[in-house]
Amino acid sequence: MALLSVLTPVLAVVLCLVVGFMLLGSRKTKTASTSSGKTEGASKADFRPWVDQDLQDDTEITAKEDEDGDWVDTIEDEDLLHVPHSTPRYPEETMLRRSRDMYTLMNQRRSVRFISPEPFPQEVIDNVIRTAGIGAHTEPWTFVVVSDPETKHQIRRIVEEEEEVNYRQRMGDKWVHDLAKLKTNWIKEYLDVAPYLILVFKQTYGILPNGKKKTHYYNEISVSISCGLLLAALQNVGLVTVTTTPLNCGPQLRLLLKRPANEKLLILLPVGYPASDATVPDLKRKPLDDIMVRI
Amino acid sequence: MALLSVLTPVLAVVLCLVVGFMLLGSRKTKTASTSSGKTEGASKADFRPWVDQDLQDDTEITAKEDEDGDWVDTIEDEDLLHVPHSTPRYPEETMLRRSRDMYTLMNQRRSVRFISPEPFPQEVIDNVIRTAGIGAHTEPWTFVVVSDPETKHQIRRIVEEEEEVNYRQRMGDKWVHDLAKLKTNWIKEYLDVAPYLILVFKQTYGILPNGKKKTHYYNEISVSISCGLLLAALQNVGLVTVTTTPLNCGPQLRLLLKRPANEKLLILLPVGYPASDATVPDLKRKPLDDIMVRI
Repeated sequence: MALLSVLTPVLAVVLCLVVGFMLLGSRKTKTASTSSGKTEGASKADFRPWVDQDLQDDTEITAKEDEDGDWVDTIEDEDLLHVPHSTPRYPEETMLRRSRDMYTLMNQRRSVRFISPEPFPQEVIDNVIRTAGIGAHTEPWTFVVVSDPETKHQIRRIVEEEEEVNYRQRMGDKWVHDLAKLKTNWIKEYLDVAPYLILVFKQTYGILPNGKKKTHYYNEISVSISCGLLLAALQNVGLVTVTTTPLNCGPQLRLLLKRPANEKLLILLPVGYPASDATVPDLKRKPLDDIMVRI
Repeated sequence: MALLSVLTPVLAVVLCLVVGFMLLGSRKTKTASTSSGKTEGASKADFRPWVDQDLQDDTEITAKEDEDGDWVDTIEDEDLLHVPHSTPRYPEETMLRRSRDMYTLMNQRRSVRFISPEPFPQEVIDNVIRTAGIGAHTEPWTFVVVSDPETKHQIRRIVEEEEEVNYRQRMGDKWVHDLAKLKTNWIKEYLDVAPYLILVFKQTYGILPNGKKKTHYYNEISVSISCGLLLAALQNVGLVTVTTTPLNCGPQLRLLLKRPANEKLLILLPVGYPASDATVPDLKRKPLDDIMVRI
């Protein structure tokens, strides 16, 4: 009996330690299971990644929803007909001239923040967006073209409100300092002034006529590529823009422009002629040998 | 004394519970501090996100390394000189014609997987890459141009080995089914046949001459935009390509091509004339009204 009363505290200690470690164990599991899809992907990935870990492409995370059965194949069962393809073929001298001419034209392109309010035909914008639209076959984009002054002003208010917070609080001294070089700040007069604002939304997934979802692989890369075509098309007609990615304005602008939940704002482009007094920072581009390696 | 021997187990229990909860507490903190930069960003973000949560831009995560003091401002203290900017100004009729002509030319562009081995002047590739290089001022890219047959073949072996696993194991029936429409599989003959392979690497950060790191904001979007310019430039000279993002080949190709650790493969483009018997899937593009919204 005496022995028992001596042992009781020891038993109690052992019991509590057991309980304690069980609690720790459960906490550990809980943490793991609440980690993000990407993290889960990464742990699976130790054997065979299902997501491109190197590019951190999140398409497959979107595609996971597939398991809800709420998705369908993007195509009919039978293969699509394949047709012969030909591309205009130029003699080498013409190829060389065309490649030099296009470089000369594009090399004049600069990001311009001083845009003239002068109008120009909407058809030019239409053709520029048609040109941008020849990118990926999934066409995971929506180009919202805003010329209505009131909507442009609401966009400016949203962007400036967020951008001021970005500059004052989020971006950190270094980023702000980097941008100082470009004389950029949170005042975006061009959002009122430019005759057209093009807001480029990426569709993280598509919606088929029957309401089913359709995976858009690498949608951000595809939409950015089409923006590159758009920049080339604008330069080709003598219009200027500045490629902006307003930090954290996406959700508000999406609601303002009544875009659906599968769309996210990627890039906002004010478009117009350059203002007569437009200036640009005197940046020098890297020489070809700094950006190209031959093997 | 009897009272004490009765209380001892109780005291022991209390003591153990206290220890247990202290352990839990420390575990909790540890878990939080070992969670990824993105997760931390997200939790901060409940108040004011430092990262664009909507685009899931990971630039700021890269930029976090700044705290190591291993980073510097990308620019000198004084603002950069600003210079007047002018862009070629065309009459409206000319703008309209140029916008139609460029759309007509670009609208002939298709992803072509059947590429002719016929050579053409390297200077064409140089000018095309110069054109792609007019994108973001940070120029966060390296274009590796491979014409050496042995290196092309090693690239093909790496890509096919990974792609076969992708098709057989990773991508899932739906994605494979989607691609069946395009008659794509893991056999990439064009990697041997095309006279040039352009491998586009994004630099997640830059390295200054003094070895310090330099943040590249939104580097993936910037590099994808420059790829859009590159596609336009190729089409302009009558060359074809297919935009590929070989899943999980990045690290091996980076090592093969001896690219530094700050570079990640974004896109691989085989470039050449189309093969005389080249075919493309008979895809129809969306009408303008399906990709553009006017406000």
